Amino acid sequence: MKFFLSVPFSSKVDEKGILDKAYRKDLDSLIQSLEEAGHSVFCAPKNEKWHVSERNPVKALRGDMREIEACDIYVALVYNEISAGVMFGTGLAVANDKRIVIAAPTGEEVNWVSNALSGFENVSSLNFDFYDELANQILRLVSR
Amino acid sequence: MKFFLSVPFSSKVDEKGILDKAYRKDLDSLIQSLEEAGHSVFCAPKNEKWHVSERNPVKALRGDMREIEACDIYVALVYNEISAGVMFGTGLAVANDKRIVIAAPTGEEVNWVSNALSGFENVSSLNFDFYDELANQILRLVSR
Repeated sequence: MKFFLSVPFSSKVDEKGILDKAYRKDLDSLIQSLEEAGHSVFCAPKNEKWHVSERNPVKALRGDMREIEACDIYVALVYNEISAGVMFGTGLAVANDKRIVIAAPTGEEVNWVSNALSGFENVSSLNFDFYDELANQILRLVSR
Repeated sequence: MKFFLSVPFSSKVDEKGILDKAYRKDLDSLIQSLEEAGHSVFCAPKNEKWHVSERNPVKALRGDMREIEACDIYVALVYNEISAGVMFGTGLAVANDKRIVIAAPTGEEVNWVSNALSGFENVSSLNFDFYDELANQILRLVSR
């Protein structure tokens, strides 16, 4: 299946636009676990080679939007700190009637909209402690 | 015309869920100015009588979504502090090909997605210093 992995990006980069290393490692292992299970994964930071490029934001955003429209499952990583990109993408995914997984680290407070969405039929919510465990949780959900 | 006025809500209430008074006054005067010009305005905090109700978030969110689908113009107020609801709604509005206005107070830093969206054909961006001036700016845009 085609996953769109929606994650905070521009808020997680340094002054040169390069993604935080520990966070990159977590995302990379999550993506790898999903790919090893036979799925394809689009994740904007990986697609942009782990740094925010200032070249053409309109083109970059349109590219992300097309990937959301084309995906089978939209997985949003949601943290206490709100991500504009994740919430915007979630709106697109809901409008496109996608199957949606909202994943939050255990103990983090999730915003009102993401909480409300967990009551929608096509939305599953889950909590995770570690990123490698998260891949297994997502794969279990998807195989149902 | 039918406006959907998309504004931060759950982040702007006190511990009892009641909206900040000064912010409510600003929104109310903006809504009134648009209505006096002959338009109808849906704004979730006003619709919810200026307080967050915990009764049925799924129903509340679905109600907001229907209003976005039905609107002619989606106006988002965007601040330095990111609003999950505004960004989610903006995703829905973009997916539904709405005419969109993104308004930010002068000098506030706007998130990456909102900046990128300002390059879309159906999106206009504007800055404002005062809420009563904002109504006039929106009305000028709309009359073009």
